[in-house]
Amino acid sequence: MTTDPFPKEAAARVSIGSGSITVGGMCKGSGMIEPMMATMLGFVTTDAAVPQTLLERALREVVEETFNAITVDGECSTNDCVMILANGSSGVTIDDASYSTFADALRAVCLPLAIGIVRGGEGATKLVTVNVTGAATTAEARRCAKAIANSPLVKTAIHGGDPNWGRLIAVAGRAGVAFELDRAEVTIGPIVLFKDGRPYDEAAPEAANYLKNEELTVGVSLGAGSASSTVWTCDLSAEYVKINAEYRT
Amino acid sequence: MTTDPFPKEAAARVSIGSGSITVGGMCKGSGMIEPMMATMLGFVTTDAAVPQTLLERALREVVEETFNAITVDGECSTNDCVMILANGSSGVTIDDASYSTFADALRAVCLPLAIGIVRGGEGATKLVTVNVTGAATTAEARRCAKAIANSPLVKTAIHGGDPNWGRLIAVAGRAGVAFELDRAEVTIGPIVLFKDGRPYDEAAPEAANYLKNEELTVGVSLGAGSASSTVWTCDLSAEYVKINAEYRT
Repeated sequence: MTTDPFPKEAAARVSIGSGSITVGGMCKGSGMIEPMMATMLGFVTTDAAVPQTLLERALREVVEETFNAITVDGECSTNDCVMILANGSSGVTIDDASYSTFADALRAVCLPLAIGIVRGGEGATKLVTVNVTGAATTAEARRCAKAIANSPLVKTAIHGGDPNWGRLIAVAGRAGVAFELDRAEVTIGPIVLFKDGRPYDEAAPEAANYLKNEELTVGVSLGAGSASSTVWTCDLSAEYVKINAEYRT
Repeated sequence: MTTDPFPKEAAARVSIGSGSITVGGMCKGSGMIEPMMATMLGFVTTDAAVPQTLLERALREVVEETFNAITVDGECSTNDCVMILANGSSGVTIDDASYSTFADALRAVCLPLAIGIVRGGEGATKLVTVNVTGAATTAEARRCAKAIANSPLVKTAIHGGDPNWGRLIAVAGRAGVAFELDRAEVTIGPIVLFKDGRPYDEAAPEAANYLKNEELTVGVSLGAGSASSTVWTCDLSAEYVKINAEYRT
């Protein structure tokens, strides 16, 4: 029996050569223990035999796109950690040829765990996927996506269901990344709200309707290149403030 | 007649040689106009005659310690600006010898304006001075002070009156600055809550009482050097979320 409304367990099974391996994982997330610092613990296991260098490479690669691509409130704890254990009991050994299959299985486990942490974020009512495209570099795409995902004005606009493209553009403008307003684009779900240097306010009612969903996507194209990054976050609610203002040490 | 509960006007008059000059300023602050992006506009005037190079130097120096040392919600607008106009009508010309007197007068005008913006921050109920000391460099002191001032967990703890030294230490730990826990110190007002690598929980009730003030100071010494920085911020309230979630484009 679980009392967690957002269970964070995942598993993947893939065939490699004549055998198959399993990757399983579980994690705990934000605001569930003292000192409520969004302390994140992730544990992943596999029955594959994986040389340490490949295992470390796979975990680093996958964590960058999963656990390191989420934010509830920007409050990374100094003791956030993800661990992987591989015991080889499947009889299958991962090598360079099967590396990408293994990494894909690992990603298939880590991503829903990471997203589960965001779903269970303190006071969260919506899961928000932030896609930044058209960036000069991947690092800039990530920096901009994180800035959007941590922006209190973006998070409160989404909480209030307001298709406020101005707040998205403003964060892109202050994120310290290459950004060409004339080529920039803002989308909420499939709906274009800003393009060709001008707002499409006629689409606002449709976007407001889309924002009633509990899972939604916002997109900003920076118009400065072809790199992209995706980050997952949640909205900012009065409940978040209540939880953290009323919590006592 | 003003309807602004936090009027943001200031003036300073100083003697220089046989004459005297006046510096005056006014600004507008956070959340007072559409699109509610904490757009900040500051205007400063003086009747001193100031060579452009000295005027620019003074404004840059002073802005760094005043307008650039405040944060309500980390949402700097791309069009924040401060302008200074000098018309020389006092008959006094500023030179290298009188530069520091002029810069001090400018600082005396800009600091209350900047602090006024924080007092009028959306949903703010408290003015918080964040002092970071013991840093390896001034830049690291500033980075840590800004991280503390923008931390939702610190801002909600202060809103709730909770002397939560752990949240302050945790931000210092994640701020990306040199930080020696064994030599670190956390103070709330004059009250030491963490020192010599251990909490002083016996001081918590006194600190909780201090946090009832509407103007308060928190301090973190990083134990890593002798540089320092001061930043001004406000608490994070449910009212902030309400204002920004209910505001519609």
